[in-house]
Amino acid sequence: MPRCLPQRDGARGGRGRGPTLPKIVDHDQRRAEVLEATWRVITTVGLHGATTRRIAQEAGYSNGVLAHYFADKADILTSALQMVHARVRGRMEAAVSRTEGLAAFRAVLLEALPLDEDRLFEANLEFGYLSHAINATRLRDLYQDERIGFNEFLHTLVAAARARDEVRADLDDAHVVAEALVFIDGISAQAVFLPNRMPPELQLDLADTFLARISTTD
Amino acid sequence: MPRCLPQRDGARGGRGRGPTLPKIVDHDQRRAEVLEATWRVITTVGLHGATTRRIAQEAGYSNGVLAHYFADKADILTSALQMVHARVRGRMEAAVSRTEGLAAFRAVLLEALPLDEDRLFEANLEFGYLSHAINATRLRDLYQDERIGFNEFLHTLVAAARARDEVRADLDDAHVVAEALVFIDGISAQAVFLPNRMPPELQLDLADTFLARISTTD
Repeated sequence: MPRCLPQRDGARGGRGRGPTLPKIVDHDQRRAEVLEATWRVITTVGLHGATTRRIAQEAGYSNGVLAHYFADKADILTSALQMVHARVRGRMEAAVSRTEGLAAFRAVLLEALPLDEDRLFEANLEFGYLSHAINATRLRDLYQDERIGFNEFLHTLVAAARARDEVRADLDDAHVVAEALVFIDGISAQAVFLPNRMPPELQLDLADTFLARISTTD
Repeated sequence: MPRCLPQRDGARGGRGRGPTLPKIVDHDQRRAEVLEATWRVITTVGLHGATTRRIAQEAGYSNGVLAHYFADKADILTSALQMVHARVRGRMEAAVSRTEGLAAFRAVLLEALPLDEDRLFEANLEFGYLSHAINATRLRDLYQDERIGFNEFLHTLVAAARARDEVRADLDDAHVVAEALVFIDGISAQAVFLPNRMPPELQLDLADTFLARISTTD
């Protein structure tokens, strides 16, 4: 991933006159604007329809300005996915900081489920990327890294819940994590493609069935 | 779905001289050839790269010949999905005919899981379609119809198993079916995007954990 870190204006050199901090913020803000425009384009016309021209138009910039912030289309798409994942991760970390053990695991599961409009948007985007990733090596690599990271995060949570004797002794940690990932992906697929059949109430109901099953307290 | 049924040669009129049956077979065979070529193209370059030109080339026909068998690209893509689903359904029906009750339900689940190369190919195709279907009304409608049909099929199987007292009394049929669909989609997503983390043994292990949980015998 050669260019995933935002390029700081300071690194460009030459025009080192103006105040540095505002420029950096401006640069990151512009990148963020472009990535948010990218999300809107993807959910409107699909990932295959998300051309740089269209993204530039949606963001209100010219193609030339876009090239100033991103190496190429793949760079925009992978950065947009990373930005969504960072948003989800931020919510999960906030949830984990408020609670502990199996309750923290539950809170993270719920953040991953398409329970409201924002999270359904994320699930839509996720599946858009998923199918694109099948045929795009770079995106696929990133995608797999992100998934492995999430797997490890869940692992930490299950281990913490087990340390508090909240997870059934006859269940293996890796097995619980595998089930949780299957659960999240399955719910997301259902909600994206048949939303009427997978309303938030059923998602919560299935989540609590799953959690009751791995829990020592019932 | 105006043109989903194969057009019989007989219906074209005019050249009604030759033997009728071989012509019909020929027509259906050609359609099948084109649809199989479509599968290969989709798994190679993705659904968004599956142009009619490319499909014709892969099938060894000209664009003009293709137009003889299909109304347009959407017709080819929906027909290809239906053909894959028919293949899966055929396997499931064969499995159901050999056994009964929860064992039949289990056999159907296994046919839906990406346990071998053919089924992993089907899962790949399925996810390719899924993301495309988000932005394509006609495909989305077909997709939803097929999913609702599968839901109903699973419902029948669960009801049959329950009639034999093989399903736990405290579980609701609709809940079991919802869990089964979530399970299948989740496993498929994992196997398509992180195959190393979701090998056939783990799939079977998770399937049997799920089945043990709904079963009266354990």
